[in-house]
Amino acid sequence: MEPRFADRVAQMDASDIRQLMKIITDSSLISFGAGNPAKNLFPIEELKKANDLVYRDNALEAFQYSNSEGYAPLREWIADRHNTANQTHFVKDNILITNGSQQGLDLVGKILLNKGDIVLCESPTYTSALSAFRSYECEFRDVTMDSEGMILSEVEALITKHNNIKLIYIIPNYQNPTGTTWSLERRKAIAEIAAKNRIIIIEDDPYNEMGFDGSRIPSISKFDNNKIVITLGSFSKSLCPGLRIGWIIASEDILAKLIYAKQATDLQTNEIVQRQVYYYLKMYNFDEHLSGMREKYKHRCKIACDSATAFFPETVHFIKPAGGFFLWLSLPDHIDTKDLLPLAIQRGVAYVPGQSFYSDKSRHNNIRLNYSSAAEPDLVRGIQILGSLFNEVCS
Amino acid sequence: MEPRFADRVAQMDASDIRQLMKIITDSSLISFGAGNPAKNLFPIEELKKANDLVYRDNALEAFQYSNSEGYAPLREWIADRHNTANQTHFVKDNILITNGSQQGLDLVGKILLNKGDIVLCESPTYTSALSAFRSYECEFRDVTMDSEGMILSEVEALITKHNNIKLIYIIPNYQNPTGTTWSLERRKAIAEIAAKNRIIIIEDDPYNEMGFDGSRIPSISKFDNNKIVITLGSFSKSLCPGLRIGWIIASEDILAKLIYAKQATDLQTNEIVQRQVYYYLKMYNFDEHLSGMREKYKHRCKIACDSATAFFPETVHFIKPAGGFFLWLSLPDHIDTKDLLPLAIQRGVAYVPGQSFYSDKSRHNNIRLNYSSAAEPDLVRGIQILGSLFNEVCS
Repeated sequence: MEPRFADRVAQMDASDIRQLMKIITDSSLISFGAGNPAKNLFPIEELKKANDLVYRDNALEAFQYSNSEGYAPLREWIADRHNTANQTHFVKDNILITNGSQQGLDLVGKILLNKGDIVLCESPTYTSALSAFRSYECEFRDVTMDSEGMILSEVEALITKHNNIKLIYIIPNYQNPTGTTWSLERRKAIAEIAAKNRIIIIEDDPYNEMGFDGSRIPSISKFDNNKIVITLGSFSKSLCPGLRIGWIIASEDILAKLIYAKQATDLQTNEIVQRQVYYYLKMYNFDEHLSGMREKYKHRCKIACDSATAFFPETVHFIKPAGGFFLWLSLPDHIDTKDLLPLAIQRGVAYVPGQSFYSDKSRHNNIRLNYSSAAEPDLVRGIQILGSLFNEVCS
Repeated sequence: MEPRFADRVAQMDASDIRQLMKIITDSSLISFGAGNPAKNLFPIEELKKANDLVYRDNALEAFQYSNSEGYAPLREWIADRHNTANQTHFVKDNILITNGSQQGLDLVGKILLNKGDIVLCESPTYTSALSAFRSYECEFRDVTMDSEGMILSEVEALITKHNNIKLIYIIPNYQNPTGTTWSLERRKAIAEIAAKNRIIIIEDDPYNEMGFDGSRIPSISKFDNNKIVITLGSFSKSLCPGLRIGWIIASEDILAKLIYAKQATDLQTNEIVQRQVYYYLKMYNFDEHLSGMREKYKHRCKIACDSATAFFPETVHFIKPAGGFFLWLSLPDHIDTKDLLPLAIQRGVAYVPGQSFYSDKSRHNNIRLNYSSAAEPDLVRGIQILGSLFNEVCS
């Protein structure tokens, strides 16, 4: 008997990326698909030692039900680190720990979006953010990007046209999928525009530690005089995704609602793991770990770019990223990269077609190519294989 | 600046229980409040050994992104155990691992409830299920309970009256908060009524291992010929809540939608912990652990009931439970147990007022008294203190 599902189910479909991950797990493909960090950079041994101490020190408490906000010392650490990097003034009561950043997107959608409300997003944007917000039956308007962020005149025109824009969704650093980083000026300006129009900004920032040269443009939250910026962070890229530890930074008013939503959604995040991460951060030099990680990713990115330059035809374009995990390829307009994928897989290479990164699926000639997880020889070989395929079809 | 929250936020408020937990954590109160299992029954040492093996065997994989459905061997174990207990025929593809059972409630609400849809629930029922469903802007109708479950004539009358009843929410074993267990006949009958009317049953079953004599009435899923039963389970009571590992059992059609919802909500559950639980289950005798646990809870329940009989006035009623964690007290009609709580706290005892277990908050003279977590001498002393308070006010 077919159940009577909620209307929102009609808009849900499997994430292309997570479906692709299944193929990848099942085979010996070279995968440029999932946005996975490199497994061999996970500080497993250190995390194990931190974990041993959690069991030694606080096992009983950590294994019991605990509060929905998260482990207080970890929340404090996150506030302090954000403040140091951005000259902001957050305290632990501005921080909610989440099951990875994806839960942050869900909770923000839950407290802010009514059916039919509009979310402005970057074009293209992170596909799983679209899925999270779609659960609340919102609509999207894609805003054109240049190398510094959203085109602000377009944002303003959309705000004039629609009175139910609730959110502006921004990935400010080394964006997934394009690698774009917002300029300082653009960050300041969007905070002003949003405040003037009572619109919330979600700053989704999992890659901020992943700039190859370690430099950082301040968080949009620094320019938030009106408590309208919500910043999402994560240890998924900087430590490892399996931990499922992310966080939300917001004003206490907004955080209070997010905590109610968290209670209703899953009560709390695993506190054993929260303590494990906190112990890790106290026991080891996180910055040293990050700096080693950045070097490795910088090197992989160089290999990927050099290989792409060597093997791809001139009709395939990309911009060399300054951080993050991805090359964003633009193929000639007549190519549908979804149709091309089976051919690539036949030759042993997987990637994510760009279409699902556009809320309206309007463009079909892009590819997101993840360079962070494949082994280096595979990286070169995989790009060479793609190059020969592109040379055949991109005439 | 006050953000423009979603309409559903108006219905959200802090869970009374979780707010109470904060008071409890901060003080030396005797707590009958939270539904916590007894910390000293957690098999910490065994879980630690299981965890060590996860790190030894599969660390890298478990720390990477993995699939949304959950760790396959654990899903298989859950299907097998459910089948053995209930003569059902589920396979791993009927199982989705969740961050505790609370997430199961949220995901089910997400895929089934439109604004204004009706959920039939037991009166009283688990307060955090109400919060989970409220996020999807549904309405509730409370169904009167007797000692065998919902009064079926009332269910049928409601179905005749409303054509948008989507869910029937049932806690079949040692219900939170009343301790009621549904009879076999009532389980069969509700499955038939639901199927005939294309209504989904959520069978929320975290306490099924918690019957004092170890006996079990089969799951409602056993009588589900129409794939309309969704069963939620959890290791929160049988192992420990801090792990945040629960599960959903459903038909593959329903599970497919739940997996999409899980992807959008938080991608996946922590796989390191899933493997840890699976290793624990393979390495140790779970049934022996459960049987020891049951003995302890049976003993505590006896102490609680004996003390209540000794110290409470005759105007305070309760039914001796056959399992689970709670005594459900009915005080005289003129008592509002929310008003009484500050007096109890003043004397050093905390409990949860019964009002929030009714979707319409219509009754105010109940108390949920958790006997599973307080130390035994505190259990007696706390009930004695409550008894003297009741004697003063329940004239």
